[in-house]
Amino acid sequence: MELLKERIRKDGVVKEGNVLKVDSFLNHQMDITLFNEIGKEFKRRFADERIDKILTIEASGIGIAAITAQYFGVPVVFAKKAQSINLDGTILSAPVESFTHKRRYEVIVASRFLQPEEHVLIVDDFLANGCAALGLCQIVEAAHAQVAGIGVVIEKGFQQGGRVLREQGLRVESLAIVDGMDAATQTVQFRD
Amino acid sequence: MELLKERIRKDGVVKEGNVLKVDSFLNHQMDITLFNEIGKEFKRRFADERIDKILTIEASGIGIAAITAQYFGVPVVFAKKAQSINLDGTILSAPVESFTHKRRYEVIVASRFLQPEEHVLIVDDFLANGCAALGLCQIVEAAHAQVAGIGVVIEKGFQQGGRVLREQGLRVESLAIVDGMDAATQTVQFRD
Repeated sequence: MELLKERIRKDGVVKEGNVLKVDSFLNHQMDITLFNEIGKEFKRRFADERIDKILTIEASGIGIAAITAQYFGVPVVFAKKAQSINLDGTILSAPVESFTHKRRYEVIVASRFLQPEEHVLIVDDFLANGCAALGLCQIVEAAHAQVAGIGVVIEKGFQQGGRVLREQGLRVESLAIVDGMDAATQTVQFRD
Repeated sequence: MELLKERIRKDGVVKEGNVLKVDSFLNHQMDITLFNEIGKEFKRRFADERIDKILTIEASGIGIAAITAQYFGVPVVFAKKAQSINLDGTILSAPVESFTHKRRYEVIVASRFLQPEEHVLIVDDFLANGCAALGLCQIVEAAHAQVAGIGVVIEKGFQQGGRVLREQGLRVESLAIVDGMDAATQTVQFRD
């Protein structure tokens, strides 16, 4: 998605340790006009799939999923990262290891929000080691629902997540795949 | 907002301890069609205010803020609840006590996303004790920006938050104000 790559080139900041900061438009400040273009592009790529629901994970995925859902006409469920006194009933959970925060946590979804046979599109801002996406897939499977696909805004192509998910036969659509970046020159190499 | 009150009556669940669960449409599963009506209503109520940016807090506020931002044509910034290795530069922070989670945490915003003189609309799903909203107001003031108003989906009118904020001269628009609820009868009393 050329518009997105241009925006990453213009406003993304490369930090040591393969960190790509896009917090000025994607995951702290959110450019809702860009999000609408992202939503349209996910709809274009998954136009041939039946999608009943979008599943994402708090916090950065929520804005993208909400805007994207408008193009699919479906509700969004976001997985939570910590037990809340407000969550009860049957809980589906999976362990996730965060690349950004260097810690492990449980992600949880109330099982009544994922019905058997539903076709679920998983949406997130980043795909790196794939742990978050794999956790969400586990939750969808535990609900006896089906992963219709995984829509990612930025994939770090030099980490294993995309490969692992695709090897499992999952359809992963990443709007920008970063194959390398250099903090010294502030350059980002995209996959064609 | 009648549509919202009807939805709360229909799908809200009252639990002991003044807990109103609206996770089937507001803060776990998100009904994006309803969110669009909420966004339109916030725009109608704040039509006479200059709004340059919407500020919310992760996680439940993000979806509402993103959809609402479309009606104002402005970006969203969401305050984060924990220090991240991805956040650097100058940080604005405020302490918040959560009613739901019974704990204290810091909310933080990178200061470069709130410019002096900007008029900021604060949006959140719930207003109860007002701590989250007060924390966000503190952050806006620390940035030398201005709180244009506070848009809340559900206000718990029997808790102090709304009163405290209004006494400070802040404009609070709550789309549904709950004055009481009863877990035994599953009834919710709304303010007229």
